[in-house]
Amino acid sequence: MWGEPVLILMQANATDSQIEAVVRAIEDLGYRAHVMPGATRVAIGVTGNEGAIDAARFENMPGIAEAVRVSKPYKLVTLDFHSEKTVVRVGDATIGGDDLAIIAGPCAIESRAQAFAIAETVRRSGARFFRGGAFKPRTSPYAFQGLGEEGLRILAEIRETYGLKIVTEAVDEAGVDLVERYGDVIQIGARSMQNFTLLRRAGKSRLPVLLKRGLSATLDEWLLAAEYIMSEGNSQVVLCERGIRTFSQHTRNTLDLAVIPAVRRVSHLPVIVDPSHGTGKNYMVTALARAGVAVGADGLIVEVHDAPAQALSDGAQALRLEQYEQLVSEVRAIHEVMAPAAVS
Amino acid sequence: MWGEPVLILMQANATDSQIEAVVRAIEDLGYRAHVMPGATRVAIGVTGNEGAIDAARFENMPGIAEAVRVSKPYKLVTLDFHSEKTVVRVGDATIGGDDLAIIAGPCAIESRAQAFAIAETVRRSGARFFRGGAFKPRTSPYAFQGLGEEGLRILAEIRETYGLKIVTEAVDEAGVDLVERYGDVIQIGARSMQNFTLLRRAGKSRLPVLLKRGLSATLDEWLLAAEYIMSEGNSQVVLCERGIRTFSQHTRNTLDLAVIPAVRRVSHLPVIVDPSHGTGKNYMVTALARAGVAVGADGLIVEVHDAPAQALSDGAQALRLEQYEQLVSEVRAIHEVMAPAAVS
Amino acid sequence: MWGEPVLILMQANATDSQIEAVVRAIEDLGYRAHVMPGATRVAIGVTGNEGAIDAARFENMPGIAEAVRVSKPYKLVTLDFHSEKTVVRVGDATIGGDDLAIIAGPCAIESRAQAFAIAETVRRSGARFFRGGAFKPRTSPYAFQGLGEEGLRILAEIRETYGLKIVTEAVDEAGVDLVERYGDVIQIGARSMQNFTLLRRAGKSRLPVLLKRGLSATLDEWLLAAEYIMSEGNSQVVLCERGIRTFSQHTRNTLDLAVIPAVRRVSHLPVIVDPSHGTGKNYMVTALARAGVAVGADGLIVEVHDAPAQALSDGAQALRLEQYEQLVSEVRAIHEVMAPAAVS
Amino acid sequence: MWGEPVLILMQANATDSQIEAVVRAIEDLGYRAHVMPGATRVAIGVTGNEGAIDAARFENMPGIAEAVRVSKPYKLVTLDFHSEKTVVRVGDATIGGDDLAIIAGPCAIESRAQAFAIAETVRRSGARFFRGGAFKPRTSPYAFQGLGEEGLRILAEIRETYGLKIVTEAVDEAGVDLVERYGDVIQIGARSMQNFTLLRRAGKSRLPVLLKRGLSATLDEWLLAAEYIMSEGNSQVVLCERGIRTFSQHTRNTLDLAVIPAVRRVSHLPVIVDPSHGTGKNYMVTALARAGVAVGADGLIVEVHDAPAQALSDGAQALRLEQYEQLVSEVRAIHEVMAPAAVS
Repeated sequence: MWGEPVLILMQANATDSQIEAVVRAIEDLGYRAHVMPGATRVAIGVTGNEGAIDAARFENMPGIAEAVRVSKPYKLVTLDFHSEKTVVRVGDATIGGDDLAIIAGPCAIESRAQAFAIAETVRRSGARFFRGGAFKPRTSPYAFQGLGEEGLRILAEIRETYGLKIVTEAVDEAGVDLVERYGDVIQIGARSMQNFTLLRRAGKSRLPVLLKRGLSATLDEWLLAAEYIMSEGNSQVVLCERGIRTFSQHTRNTLDLAVIPAVRRVSHLPVIVDPSHGTGKNYMVTALARAGVAVGADGLIVEVHDAPAQALSDGAQALRLEQYEQLVSEVRAIHEVMAPAAVS
Repeated sequence: MWGEPVLILMQANATDSQIEAVVRAIEDLGYRAHVMPGATRVAIGVTGNEGAIDAARFENMPGIAEAVRVSKPYKLVTLDFHSEKTVVRVGDATIGGDDLAIIAGPCAIESRAQAFAIAETVRRSGARFFRGGAFKPRTSPYAFQGLGEEGLRILAEIRETYGLKIVTEAVDEAGVDLVERYGDVIQIGARSMQNFTLLRRAGKSRLPVLLKRGLSATLDEWLLAAEYIMSEGNSQVVLCERGIRTFSQHTRNTLDLAVIPAVRRVSHLPVIVDPSHGTGKNYMVTALARAGVAVGADGLIVEVHDAPAQALSDGAQALRLEQYEQLVSEVRAIHEVMAPAAVS
Repeated sequence: MWGEPVLILMQANATDSQIEAVVRAIEDLGYRAHVMPGATRVAIGVTGNEGAIDAARFENMPGIAEAVRVSKPYKLVTLDFHSEKTVVRVGDATIGGDDLAIIAGPCAIESRAQAFAIAETVRRSGARFFRGGAFKPRTSPYAFQGLGEEGLRILAEIRETYGLKIVTEAVDEAGVDLVERYGDVIQIGARSMQNFTLLRRAGKSRLPVLLKRGLSATLDEWLLAAEYIMSEGNSQVVLCERGIRTFSQHTRNTLDLAVIPAVRRVSHLPVIVDPSHGTGKNYMVTALARAGVAVGADGLIVEVHDAPAQALSDGAQALRLEQYEQLVSEVRAIHEVMAPAAVS
Repeated sequence: MWGEPVLILMQANATDSQIEAVVRAIEDLGYRAHVMPGATRVAIGVTGNEGAIDAARFENMPGIAEAVRVSKPYKLVTLDFHSEKTVVRVGDATIGGDDLAIIAGPCAIESRAQAFAIAETVRRSGARFFRGGAFKPRTSPYAFQGLGEEGLRILAEIRETYGLKIVTEAVDEAGVDLVERYGDVIQIGARSMQNFTLLRRAGKSRLPVLLKRGLSATLDEWLLAAEYIMSEGNSQVVLCERGIRTFSQHTRNTLDLAVIPAVRRVSHLPVIVDPSHGTGKNYMVTALARAGVAVGADGLIVEVHDAPAQALSDGAQALRLEQYEQLVSEVRAIHEVMAPAAVS
């Protein structure tokens, strides 16, 4: 918005009086109309608007074939308003800087023993962030829903012990309060990407926000969700591609890696990849993690478990500890040869 | 869930010891394994489970080609547990009974005058339900977000004046409190279909819930969202198909009318159709409303506006008052000839 | 195409010299550039082109944010060039006129006895068209591929005996030769919708063409496939919606009924619905057939089998004879009450 | 197929006589039925079949809730029947071996000068394959359709001059004859993936076949298309992922890179990636090419043009010569560090 034009295309047989009526309607709304005669049709450009024009509203006027809005209805997320890339800082760790950010841990915190066993490996791998869910949004009401605040306490202990930064999900406003007490980064899950109450609350937090792309979110909708957070004053937002829903059923979701360069082209926000949810299959995670780094992502978020077969959630996609270590070594190697390319 | 089996398919060259290892893993989890030798491969059925088995967890064992869960992880929503069709009652109006339920009104309540002008027509059409948003979930933080509680007060007045039942959206727990104070049916929007905090809260309400299908929700996920509500004690749930997101861009969403008979086959819950969001185009709404009734839906929810070109939201899809009246007369005619067919 | 404009949107920080460079590039290609200054950005309209402009080609120029083509690159199929609705005539039967066209028969011709048993019922129902495949495009090379020319001979006999018009698929140029010898309408299947060699050949035939929409075809691509046929001189084209591929897996395909009014708005060609392939489920076919008629389709194509459980292909979706008779009676009832509505 | 089982799940309230009827139906078809009682439902495994069982055909029997086929109806393409990875050889060049195969060139051959200018750069980059279309399948009948046989003659000259192997598309049987005369590898495009007449003809050729995945093809459908070619005797098939059609519109197609490890898990055929059609955007091609190599593809096919802005087709996605050279250097660097990983 902010003044981007709409283009109206008249039907080939539109009459002069229909064209005039459209021009008048545009001017009545306080905009300027630019009539452009074509070989067989007339087009009318609309400019001068300060806010967004709802292009579709013109479509029902007689003689109009189509109305197209070319606007991008966001601003704070764009390079237009902030041309330097954002580096999100969590203590001495960063996402969006030169280092490849690695966030690893179990889907859900199941017990202190489990969490510590995994955190030990994550720390040793050189990753700076630990993930783990305490409140799990589950498709079925009968599935394991997380340990709740007890899980958060375990995460806080891990931070103390290993110096890892804690990334954990909030599913509602009360959840944000809790993450603020125990964690370092508020994760907003794919299903919550358009929970606007939650986005506004996260926008008022002093903690950075990891915003996952919704299963059926377009690039614009995703950036607008980030705009919700930023419009409340929190500019520390990390985007996370985790796969979209398509007809393709050989994976749980279809990882849309092209969205990484697409984000780069319009936004200054860092963007990372989740190859675990993005595939849902243990045997693919490492290959897609490599691809995510090669495409230019700022980091990865990966599910690791000390005993995937016993995991209470998402066991099928969790890496075993030694698989995770192998992943880190492979993606680091790619990140190193990528260094100059990633800039481009 | 509740005991539905999983089928494991071994690779053609799986060894006997791999097969034995799978059988042992199944038995270790407390289930029964049924080995079925095929022409070139062995299959293993898993039964005896009380809850859901995560089929995918077996996929990483050596020698396994695929593991398929055949379970439907819901129960309260199914015909298995409640073989009679549910009729949702709102005072003397019903959804799911013999009458075609019509819910009509503007996308958002914009003013008292606007709301009353539309309600007048809705009442005259014989519809029993009035829709109107007071808290609008909008993709952009800069778009009109509704009048808030003021909008709800206008809705309550409309109920007083016209005897129409009020259907209005809650986007968070506080919103449910408000709908309980002013309205008759809690609408849960497509973007909130997996907002489990909200679903649980609605499940504790004494009001019926209109649950829209998410843009990328499978039938199972939608029914599980209803299961969340029902598992908290509220059995008055109406499902609403409002279009899914596909590659097809000639409409805002793709209305998936086949989901109506699909719901009928497994669930006792009433299901209605939203041809306004389902198409996003004024000129298609009536045609798809007819189709929705013809496919066997229990009702329709339709956006009507006295001046669509001035609407503050979704003007492109709202019907003008006289278009709405024409729609009602057309769908009533179809509903009448349908009466015997709908039973089948 | 034929002169429809392109709109170019400059970046907010585009320099004057970048804008000039774009204007020059437009003029170098022989077009006219219309510079429209907006509140924060400049837009540039491009007109004067005789053929299509590839909007995307501008996207790589410095300072350009986006380039949008508003053109519809077809003409013969549009109402712009032929404002009266086309009625396809096959002898004394029609598609696109006042009558509801019903095309029914088995997926594949399996034997003379099977075909005649079904044709008997189809004839008795009052339908004027018989469908049946002789050359079946099958996903697997090992599946039943049809009886070939023998199947066509059986179809020709059915025409003789019952006076039904024969609709049958051609999968290649040689197939069109055969349909011309034995049949009345050339069916082009969803998988062949962009087999341009086949489209051109069908465009040279004296027989009408039934053109199914591809599984992933946009409205524009579908109309352009019809344009291929018409550009070779054959204007007798019937469009057929048969479901698109989406994430939704409760049906074989997702029937996109909104495409019927969308076609009506831009094209004069008749359009029918295939509820059999559109759902892939016997129990849904009749419900979706009703919906197809209610949405305003000119007809239906339905699979019927005298013994679906023994069908050599697509048995799961074929109706039994008595189900088919019930369907015809239900859709006729809806078509009757629709008559005035369908005009709108 | 070849004996893979079907699993039938009975409804919770299925009667004993319904279960018996299903068992009888299975046995009447010559299969074995394995009844597995669950906690609330009965499942029935079906084995003993030599060919494919159409699971859906059981779905209409009373008492059956669902029938799932677990079979993979292909064999020649699978690791089950050919456990060693296929290396496709074209003279002294290979696809599927240790080298990263690079196929580069313009979308369409436009002139001798254009083709030679590009071929010069391709040769210098070390790539072994040159691509270029002579017969272009175009969505619009009015778009440039290629130079035809003249284009093939230019390609043959390029082979002579630079020793590059020629990869070029055939859209029909006559086209295969021509590619056999002038080229080295028959390309089958996305739109032709289920043109079974064409697949069979290619299966009879002595030339290798590059088989692109269809826009809406599942993994199984794609492998079955390869099975068509192989079942005619031609085992030299290279698969090519080129993007699928999804709701995501920031790219022309959504590149599904997870299909690379998915293919590896079931098939011995080499698989490459097309980042040009896979994105449709010049600025993304190199990033996705890196990702394609990182995910483990055997090669890339890339569009290069000496003057993309003047390209007669697909100019928006073609790389300029120097961009192409940069791409080759970046993907080679990744391929080198990948070498050990790719094995895993």
